[in-house]
Amino acid sequence: MSFHRDALLSRRSHLARLLGDRPALVVSGLPRARNYAANAYRFRAASHFLYLVGWNTPGAALLYDGQSFQLFAPLPGPEEALWEGPSPSPAELSERWGLEVRDLSSLAQHLPRGDVATLPGLESDTCAMQSTWLGRVVARGALAACDEPLADALISLRLVQDEAMVFSIREALKVSTRCHLAGMAATSAGVPASRIRAAMEAPMLAANVEPAYGSIVTCHGEVLHDTRYDHLLSAEDLLLADVGAESPEGVASDITRTWPVSGTFSPEAAALYDAVLAAQAQAIATVAPGRRYRDVHLAAMQSLAEGLVAVGLLQGDPAERVADDSVALFFPHGIGHLLGLDVHDMEDLGDRAGYAPGRTRDARPSLRYLRLDRDLVPGMLLTIEPGLYFVPALLDDAETRRKYADRVRWPEVDRFAQVRGIRIEDDVLVTAAGCEVLSAAIPKDRAAIEKAVGATMP
Amino acid sequence: MSFHRDALLSRRSHLARLLGDRPALVVSGLPRARNYAANAYRFRAASHFLYLVGWNTPGAALLYDGQSFQLFAPLPGPEEALWEGPSPSPAELSERWGLEVRDLSSLAQHLPRGDVATLPGLESDTCAMQSTWLGRVVARGALAACDEPLADALISLRLVQDEAMVFSIREALKVSTRCHLAGMAATSAGVPASRIRAAMEAPMLAANVEPAYGSIVTCHGEVLHDTRYDHLLSAEDLLLADVGAESPEGVASDITRTWPVSGTFSPEAAALYDAVLAAQAQAIATVAPGRRYRDVHLAAMQSLAEGLVAVGLLQGDPAERVADDSVALFFPHGIGHLLGLDVHDMEDLGDRAGYAPGRTRDARPSLRYLRLDRDLVPGMLLTIEPGLYFVPALLDDAETRRKYADRVRWPEVDRFAQVRGIRIEDDVLVTAAGCEVLSAAIPKDRAAIEKAVGATMP
Repeated sequence: MSFHRDALLSRRSHLARLLGDRPALVVSGLPRARNYAANAYRFRAASHFLYLVGWNTPGAALLYDGQSFQLFAPLPGPEEALWEGPSPSPAELSERWGLEVRDLSSLAQHLPRGDVATLPGLESDTCAMQSTWLGRVVARGALAACDEPLADALISLRLVQDEAMVFSIREALKVSTRCHLAGMAATSAGVPASRIRAAMEAPMLAANVEPAYGSIVTCHGEVLHDTRYDHLLSAEDLLLADVGAESPEGVASDITRTWPVSGTFSPEAAALYDAVLAAQAQAIATVAPGRRYRDVHLAAMQSLAEGLVAVGLLQGDPAERVADDSVALFFPHGIGHLLGLDVHDMEDLGDRAGYAPGRTRDARPSLRYLRLDRDLVPGMLLTIEPGLYFVPALLDDAETRRKYADRVRWPEVDRFAQVRGIRIEDDVLVTAAGCEVLSAAIPKDRAAIEKAVGATMP
Repeated sequence: MSFHRDALLSRRSHLARLLGDRPALVVSGLPRARNYAANAYRFRAASHFLYLVGWNTPGAALLYDGQSFQLFAPLPGPEEALWEGPSPSPAELSERWGLEVRDLSSLAQHLPRGDVATLPGLESDTCAMQSTWLGRVVARGALAACDEPLADALISLRLVQDEAMVFSIREALKVSTRCHLAGMAATSAGVPASRIRAAMEAPMLAANVEPAYGSIVTCHGEVLHDTRYDHLLSAEDLLLADVGAESPEGVASDITRTWPVSGTFSPEAAALYDAVLAAQAQAIATVAPGRRYRDVHLAAMQSLAEGLVAVGLLQGDPAERVADDSVALFFPHGIGHLLGLDVHDMEDLGDRAGYAPGRTRDARPSLRYLRLDRDLVPGMLLTIEPGLYFVPALLDDAETRRKYADRVRWPEVDRFAQVRGIRIEDDVLVTAAGCEVLSAAIPKDRAAIEKAVGATMP
């Protein structure tokens, strides 16, 4: 606890140094109603707030007045004690979080005059509260000019993870490892994917943590964001599971594995799996300080192109197949993204965090979904997640087939299409020497996968 | 499916009859961001929308133009196919839901002129959309005069459950039964409550349904809404589990059981458990058409008062101990609430649904938290959930102890306080003959509970 508290103190003091005398207000946000106000989704504070305060509490605001920090939170009254139990006093809270804690009602009298920077809440109800406090319109998803230095300061801090963050993601990955092993062991033909999801999320519930994002557990890996769980698994299917636990502090892990329902890869699935795995190895080998993340992406594309030529899905020079977007027909997303307190870290700020100043998205199919294009520095947390998919919407199109007739072997595509989708995703930390794969304990090569699928439930 | 579709058709035609030529727009609501827009909580449409449309889809609006219904929904374009997979055509959707489905973009041209009733969304972003469509301010939690007939029509429909709803809650209860049996079997001393929660929610995940509300699984039953799961269970504790599954259609079940971690009730726990169980039996025996729900509540209070006098916590005439709010010190909430598509059905409309016209909350401690005060009619779904708690905030107060000195035996209270909290909650359907307990399959008497706790995991 004091380890994390020290990290929070250090983050706030770094932020103060970056902001100088410019005041700022960072809010935790409000609970989101599910079907009525009192039946809310489990509250999770905004990541910028968690990063600086660590306390997952609703309706609170961290004020930096240009000199020091104070936390304003709605402190429960006697009525709440019946429903919510006893709550710590402001003094106890101040001690716990290493920062002066006051009741929210006194925020107004502590707010400095003039512009106070803020980051808009994720929903309009929080923005409305911010607008009232700050006396100006705070709109969802839109930074005012005076907010930009705060956004940029937080980006520069959160791009490089401190020891406490790395500790937290390691803890999250311990749980994610149990999830994936349990999912592999629980897999069998004839059951719906929901059974595998249940086996995979149970270790999170048992550890009292949440999924960092909506789990994908599907035999239709070609639907990139498939969040249905009702498909029946058949012995011929691959199961794709993109499942990651959050740490107690809210730090995300993000892991994808793909395994055969039967426990044995078919020859087609094996060939494609190894191509994806090789592309991932190539990408990971490329990660190093000073390297541009787009080049990591392109290295994976190049490796995958070589694999697809070898397998016979593509023909010609692999580098040309990357350049002419043939590979993107099968690998239509980016190689990964920043990871941290958000699974796509700081995506609330759009590409401001993911793209270095002056860089913007490239509209080419090979690059348009790339979420990160920065030069890597030690301490960055990234995912590396190549995939290979047979998406009917991309491949079953007469014009595409005509356009790529001399580059894609369409009869082979149709023969392999039953494989549907493969993705292999790990979480890596950029180090001075290159990178460390933090999720190396989760089975990945074909033999290890087949063994884990054959295991009985732990 | 056609069973449910027929029910939806019948609900809409009833609503049309009640509304006559007054147009109305019922919305499904927008996804709620968790930590950034694309990382949303699992979407769950507003209950009024689910009641009429059945389709759990975001951003949609059901329009009644004064004559007939049409559904406007954002229909996915080609870009979405990559991420979300193929989607049914409007014609297929129209067939599936038994109602004309159009793209949301054409809503504006179909909206009638003049007042169109609506029910405000649960968050301001949905309300903003409604305001734009309807050309007037639609504010969260506030009905305009023209909205009231729509609210009252939906209340009158949803108060009495049709066959499809009863079917759905029976399905939900099958899952909840598995959850509670698994929780009992998984209980042991020395583990955190999160382990028991995991065992209880796994059957929901496996069945591809959601918890109808945030599960309460705690050895601190005296904290009425305890949603921490980190308490370590000890052999002396009772575990209180308030856990209910939703049906695939979104219908809630709501079940509480309390069991000894050791597998055996202590003499103190047994005496109090039996008093709560007797109060529940008395309340259930009172449920019948024409009966006022407040009288069901008071019957439970009377029974509990008798039990507490017998055990020695209270002294004097039980009826007087109800009247002077002594019982409410130990049973500080209502005997239950409406159940349906919401676990507190239609609580989005405040007490408008729960309280009959002309009735309002009584400020007395014995009645202030009663959520329902209507005369019962066949087809109403209710919970019956007496409890008995030792809440320090209520009982460890010098003034309270002085005030109730001759009515409460305080030394006995202190002796029993280790029991902390007991609640027993079942779901009942009001029938012509009285009522049916729909959740009767879940162990409840002490012997059955002890047997289930002693069982090994299913």
